[in-house]
Amino acid sequence: MAVVIPRQEYFDRIAKIQPLIRAAGLDAVLAHGHEADCANVRYFSDYWPTFESAGVLVPAEGEAILLVGPESEEYAKGRSVLPNIYKMVEYREGADPEYPGIAVATFKEVFDKALKGKPLQKLGLIGHTITPLPVYESLKATFPNAKIVKADDVIRQLRSFKSENELACMRKAYAISEQAIECIFAEIKPGMTELQVAGIAQREIYKNGGEYEGHALYVFCGKKTCNAISRPTHNVIVPNEVIQLGIGARVNGYCSSVGIPFSIGPLPERKRRLVEFGLKAHLKTFELLKGGKVSGEVVREYMEWVKEQGFDKYMLYGPCHSIGLMEVEYPWMESTSTYPLKKNLTYQVDTFFYDTDFGLRWENGARITDDGVEMLSSKYMKYTEL
Amino acid sequence: MAVVIPRQEYFDRIAKIQPLIRAAGLDAVLAHGHEADCANVRYFSDYWPTFESAGVLVPAEGEAILLVGPESEEYAKGRSVLPNIYKMVEYREGADPEYPGIAVATFKEVFDKALKGKPLQKLGLIGHTITPLPVYESLKATFPNAKIVKADDVIRQLRSFKSENELACMRKAYAISEQAIECIFAEIKPGMTELQVAGIAQREIYKNGGEYEGHALYVFCGKKTCNAISRPTHNVIVPNEVIQLGIGARVNGYCSSVGIPFSIGPLPERKRRLVEFGLKAHLKTFELLKGGKVSGEVVREYMEWVKEQGFDKYMLYGPCHSIGLMEVEYPWMESTSTYPLKKNLTYQVDTFFYDTDFGLRWENGARITDDGVEMLSSKYMKYTEL
Repeated sequence: MAVVIPRQEYFDRIAKIQPLIRAAGLDAVLAHGHEADCANVRYFSDYWPTFESAGVLVPAEGEAILLVGPESEEYAKGRSVLPNIYKMVEYREGADPEYPGIAVATFKEVFDKALKGKPLQKLGLIGHTITPLPVYESLKATFPNAKIVKADDVIRQLRSFKSENELACMRKAYAISEQAIECIFAEIKPGMTELQVAGIAQREIYKNGGEYEGHALYVFCGKKTCNAISRPTHNVIVPNEVIQLGIGARVNGYCSSVGIPFSIGPLPERKRRLVEFGLKAHLKTFELLKGGKVSGEVVREYMEWVKEQGFDKYMLYGPCHSIGLMEVEYPWMESTSTYPLKKNLTYQVDTFFYDTDFGLRWENGARITDDGVEMLSSKYMKYTEL
Repeated sequence: MAVVIPRQEYFDRIAKIQPLIRAAGLDAVLAHGHEADCANVRYFSDYWPTFESAGVLVPAEGEAILLVGPESEEYAKGRSVLPNIYKMVEYREGADPEYPGIAVATFKEVFDKALKGKPLQKLGLIGHTITPLPVYESLKATFPNAKIVKADDVIRQLRSFKSENELACMRKAYAISEQAIECIFAEIKPGMTELQVAGIAQREIYKNGGEYEGHALYVFCGKKTCNAISRPTHNVIVPNEVIQLGIGARVNGYCSSVGIPFSIGPLPERKRRLVEFGLKAHLKTFELLKGGKVSGEVVREYMEWVKEQGFDKYMLYGPCHSIGLMEVEYPWMESTSTYPLKKNLTYQVDTFFYDTDFGLRWENGARITDDGVEMLSSKYMKYTEL
């Protein structure tokens, strides 16, 4: 069965966001995306920029427009669900070419088309944290009297809740992550580098129908497992040490990640104890997730439970973040969160503990149901010693 | 022999840019980098952000400072060559967490430290095209009277010319690209998807000592080869069609890319003719490159030659762009370029021709020498029919 986001679903998203744009008192929103963070652009168009960046302009009424860099027009025509495509120098690549002889559009033309000549008074930016200066400065110069505001909240209400098609993509992405881990377990040997192990996962992701990694893959051994964020290096895999995997795949833009700490040969007792406690805490979080519950409560109950168990000094942060078109996306689940858990919110249950010389992370996906939770992955929720 | 950029080389770069900062009348430069475009940050620190973004503040005199997101401190400590590291909310990830309880630094503190209390009057931005709004707005709010200007020119003078260590990284990255193509030729079969072929290359890149892809890999078959920029999809490899590879590896940040069009079984005469002409044009460019020559002349002579041969209607653009910490970097070689070719400038010779239903691209690396050019790759400069 092919897993796809049907073309109509992109237009449905635009139809759904337009009343929210109007309710926010905006004339339009402009979403930004670049190669490593293209979620908002892809959400409306399926377009995924490479080298250059891209934007989608969604007016409060009427047709949305895809904005691409000067070299991407042919690629965009073949890929974008939106038929209106303009190329603009504002979305050029970092190497800053001059493009002698290439005709590009201006924000004036693009907004005239989108707003049918109506003057722009208030524009919302989606992807405010990644919107780059050339886009912003060009908007300010073109519309000196317009108000330009952060409008990420407008799209978050939509992107947070996943459709059946989106969930099918995510389930497939999680299954691919599990296939990649299975292969790593079959092939990993002491003496390989972390990067060579990452290469095994890369091969499996593409072989099994993934379109890319879901995030920069994690393969760490020994001391490097202390890091909550890191990249694999030429560091060598050794036996009797914690080896940490975080393997994410991408299917039609939708991400997965499965995290498991394991070892080749037995771990020292102290390390084994924390790895096993981490798994217990990971399963505890799945118990705490439930439709109807206030999100911050999950975090507070989890932290309380970890404290009761006497492991709070090994805890870095709370137990969940959302996952979808990005491996980490809004909404966060923090102790201060007040929103209720509802059906089809999707979380990455992310359980990290660390000591001075090692750390560990269990990660699996969760979909909130009316009265509980669906595990999007569960095959590697077990203590593993190869 | 290990290929490395020695720690001292990073400090030498800072020492070399400081007189240029002063000559530009700036108090400091702030470089920006994100996951897909981290070149300037890596150039000064070897730090490579993931999930979050990063900056490097280089004062006109004194020590440089690495700025990372709230979750990256441990990772940065283990990876950055620069010992001064501050975590700031301005470099957070797109999912926009609240970080209850995490202490972060402000631009005021960071600049006070870098400038030793001297007031900031003029700041240069490096990576202007990717500097995001939260960084810019926070700078403006903190230093309302300071002048903030684009300063990419300051670093370009340095980054364009490669050291012996940088060249060693690039030569290794090109060799890895060639190894990956060798494996693709051994394993590719009709019926595989473009993405599955990309997976073969990914495996080889990591197996042979690469740390990542040098750019989003190109594997296209048939009509999709028309695109100068694109991404592989589930499109299926078929015989007797142009199959286009663009395989790039990364070694210590330095990129390669080898591009070759080939086929499984013979191509129709019309397509074979253009693929072979493309190779001739590609070799012509290597002939035209020479230390001392004005860069724009290479482009004009190349275009003139293509026209004489009667193939100008199939040409999309000029023959070279620079390569280094990004697969495409400044300086461009355009018909309007006036700078002279000098020793240790490194180019990607990028030869693209297309017709209505297919296209082709030959790509190999070149280092300018005093009186000619060193080919950084050449193994796959040949017409190949599997």
